[in-house]
Amino acid sequence: MEIIIKRLNYSTKGTNDLIDISSDVQSELNKLKITEGLVNIFVVGSTAAITMFEYESGLISDIRQVYENIAPEKKHYLHNETWNDANGFSHIRSALQGQGLSVPFQNSKLLSGTWQQIVLAEFDTRPRQRDLVLTFIGQ
Amino acid sequence: MEIIIKRLNYSTKGTNDLIDISSDVQSELNKLKITEGLVNIFVVGSTAAITMFEYESGLISDIRQVYENIAPEKKHYLHNETWNDANGFSHIRSALQGQGLSVPFQNSKLLSGTWQQIVLAEFDTRPRQRDLVLTFIGQ
Amino acid sequence: MEIIIKRLNYSTKGTNDLIDISSDVQSELNKLKITEGLVNIFVVGSTAAITMFEYESGLISDIRQVYENIAPEKKHYLHNETWNDANGFSHIRSALQGQGLSVPFQNSKLLSGTWQQIVLAEFDTRPRQRDLVLTFIGQ
Repeated sequence: MEIIIKRLNYSTKGTNDLIDISSDVQSELNKLKITEGLVNIFVVGSTAAITMFEYESGLISDIRQVYENIAPEKKHYLHNETWNDANGFSHIRSALQGQGLSVPFQNSKLLSGTWQQIVLAEFDTRPRQRDLVLTFIGQ
Repeated sequence: MEIIIKRLNYSTKGTNDLIDISSDVQSELNKLKITEGLVNIFVVGSTAAITMFEYESGLISDIRQVYENIAPEKKHYLHNETWNDANGFSHIRSALQGQGLSVPFQNSKLLSGTWQQIVLAEFDTRPRQRDLVLTFIGQ
Repeated sequence: MEIIIKRLNYSTKGTNDLIDISSDVQSELNKLKITEGLVNIFVVGSTAAITMFEYESGLISDIRQVYENIAPEKKHYLHNETWNDANGFSHIRSALQGQGLSVPFQNSKLLSGTWQQIVLAEFDTRPRQRDLVLTFIGQ
């Protein structure tokens, strides 16, 4: 049994950038000797999130709208006064959606479904460099 | 230390079917030699979720209402046009609630509380066969 | 490779008490021989949650308001009739936010960002003793 930590890095475009990272996670798994276990995907930072959904353009728009309903971009947030910035909504969406999740794998394949992509959600108001930590535990 | 992957399968009744799977997860744990560790429960598919709450009829109804508030069933979703179906709300609820979670165990017992059941949430519009992957890591 | 379970206990003040537990988790990690892996933080109970956000007073207030929007404290919940209590909203917030999450570590340091604190969220209507289970997996 082994635990292996890998890194991925993404350049995002700011708020509403939703990036399908499934194939990158699968590629990292392909390089490893372990074939069965669990991978945790974690994004460093408090204005992004990791989620899973069917990555198609209609649903991508729908989900953006739901994030907007939960924490509207133009609403007033006390956080914006603290740093004199405008990303209070980004922090809230990130906290609610969550900054990590785990996916099992067997025979060197992620066991997520055909329409269940792993997605990096950028909520911040400007383009960011995002560091992801992949922790593979398995044999 | 070992990592062991097990499967569970459920026949669900479609939207709003919330199934208490705690005793099934505990039963799988009982069959293993490892007694201390962490189990990840993951549902394959993007229109269901795994969550934890006190499984009693009043709260079950309350939670259904909150899911309805977050992503109303009868609202228009662009996803519904993509496939000419009606489960846009199911995907959104699934993405927000999350498709997996982890629970620690010791002395072969899940450490979740008395009123903290593990629940499979079906959001899709029709009965489904749901595959769950249980990943036990422990000694 | 090892798996090590540790406990933390907190006295909370009831609804809206959000406690930064990052340094306590880091302290437990400091005591261990393993330096690289994943820690799962899990709260026992169905009226609290574990989340991550930038722990500063403005955002703390903003997040409380969003929890209130999602499941208002004074609204009527069927759960309140079951036990003749008033914490239906607490259960709903807990189920949606989630009762556990995982954070990777390397060189004995949590890999969460500078503004990404681990937070215990108390949603119940009265002060509670909260048991947290930390499951460290690593080498």
